[in-house]
Amino acid sequence: MLKVPDHQVAGHKAGDGRLGPLVDDSGRFYKPLQGDERGANEVSFYTSFSSNTKIPDHITRFFPKFDGTQLVEASDGLGMQPHLVLQDLTFDRVNPSIMDIKIGSRTWPPHAPEDYVQKCLKKDMATSSLPLGFRVSGARIFGSSKVGYWEPKNKSSIQTLSADEVKLLLKNFISSNASEETQMKPDCAFASAVYGGSTGILSQLLEIKAWFEDQTIYHFYSCSVLMMFEKELASCGKSPRAEIKLVDFAHVHEGKGVIDHNFLGGLCSFIKFISEILTTPDDCAADSLADDAQRNHIYSDNSSV
Amino acid sequence: MLKVPDHQVAGHKAGDGRLGPLVDDSGRFYKPLQGDERGANEVSFYTSFSSNTKIPDHITRFFPKFDGTQLVEASDGLGMQPHLVLQDLTFDRVNPSIMDIKIGSRTWPPHAPEDYVQKCLKKDMATSSLPLGFRVSGARIFGSSKVGYWEPKNKSSIQTLSADEVKLLLKNFISSNASEETQMKPDCAFASAVYGGSTGILSQLLEIKAWFEDQTIYHFYSCSVLMMFEKELASCGKSPRAEIKLVDFAHVHEGKGVIDHNFLGGLCSFIKFISEILTTPDDCAADSLADDAQRNHIYSDNSSV
Repeated sequence: MLKVPDHQVAGHKAGDGRLGPLVDDSGRFYKPLQGDERGANEVSFYTSFSSNTKIPDHITRFFPKFDGTQLVEASDGLGMQPHLVLQDLTFDRVNPSIMDIKIGSRTWPPHAPEDYVQKCLKKDMATSSLPLGFRVSGARIFGSSKVGYWEPKNKSSIQTLSADEVKLLLKNFISSNASEETQMKPDCAFASAVYGGSTGILSQLLEIKAWFEDQTIYHFYSCSVLMMFEKELASCGKSPRAEIKLVDFAHVHEGKGVIDHNFLGGLCSFIKFISEILTTPDDCAADSLADDAQRNHIYSDNSSV
Repeated sequence: MLKVPDHQVAGHKAGDGRLGPLVDDSGRFYKPLQGDERGANEVSFYTSFSSNTKIPDHITRFFPKFDGTQLVEASDGLGMQPHLVLQDLTFDRVNPSIMDIKIGSRTWPPHAPEDYVQKCLKKDMATSSLPLGFRVSGARIFGSSKVGYWEPKNKSSIQTLSADEVKLLLKNFISSNASEETQMKPDCAFASAVYGGSTGILSQLLEIKAWFEDQTIYHFYSCSVLMMFEKELASCGKSPRAEIKLVDFAHVHEGKGVIDHNFLGGLCSFIKFISEILTTPDDCAADSLADDAQRNHIYSDNSSV
């Protein structure tokens, strides 16, 4: 039995007669092939990548496992349609917080048709992509079992964040007190557990970065970094299972002996945002264990800046 | 007495009533202020940069020294005009080989006027900038005192090089047998002396890269890396005085808390080209000391590929 995924943050969603991805109960994610060349392009990327012996193991782990294509009953009710069979990245995760970040200031490849260039350029200019080198495409931030998830009110608001707004979102993502209502300063309680450490988000991003400084096989246009962790594990002092995956390969092109400078530049920009949160803890509120005196002290320090 | 520089490789050149930069005999370079906002913008960058205490010393050395502005007799014969007074980067160099590489796949800043965006985009697409993340803007490669300098026949041919052509040019740049006529495979005789080592070009580029991964003060659009060395010193086994400088700051903008992902991506792409020459010496012909047998062996290896 296939069903609509619980934790999808970006892209077309299934349901109510719309075409979108489905999951099964054994960890597979079924992504409908887009009818135009995008579907064929994504299949050919996964096929090439999964059989490419030049990709080191510590890099393949950042990509969803690929299990070919399969005809399955599509979510739009129009019968059997071809789907990519991929790894369900949130399978066996409990209340994961997820963010989807589309990397690159340019979402179109060189030699794209003129009208496609202008369409993408317009969107890159209207969103964070051009100024920041990436744009947030979606986010689901788990608050608590009582308040549930925070999600952006609409898709375009999250795509057009300023640098300061992205910083705040990335702090809220790993805070215990994230809330839109109270306007509380995020406490960044889980910053070091999620972003820091030898297995945290920053370390994983730096591994991906090192590969992009060297690899000239693929150029990844309009591809996303998916960032996940489980807040409840972090709250109990356990490893929050912080993890990065790369997703969405409908616009991957051959590298032809040149590194993907567009993806790499955007990735470095995103890395700088994450590392700043780790290196400037003063910008976060005191953690929830701090006593009021210390908290007041910190607040008054900040208010005098 | 001011005169026309001997070693200019890119930009407007003085002489025959045209406005261009001049040099004096004590190491100063006089760059006429462009009349529109570009001139004012470059003055304001140099003024800001030279007084910015946050720039570490190991980075300021990559920028020309700035000595204010001065009214001098311009090269177009139209009388006294304001000039930037900068360091003459080739002062006291003998027969330097020089290359000017404009960094970034995008030469225009976000929020530029629409017609300027479209003009720059067209040029970025027509040149190497978009595919490679940089374009060669000019080159003067010293051959020998007998044959003198090699220069590209015209400006546009060097700006539109493919990845393979850039590789060949970067090999010819540091070869003892560089020649257009004989079609000889470059021997890369000076690769390790110029590109390699702790003071070579690659090391310097990596220092600049590390700064760009961190600094969020300036964004450098349409700025160039100037790469220089002296072949005759290398031929005598002396240090070839390999040096990188950044030049052309008419399009520098505020970073506003974001790294310059466009410059950084292009710089990383250029670095990959340089490091490949150092890591794959097999791609170069045997050096001039190799005996014929070895040379034939290498050639037959390559021809079988």
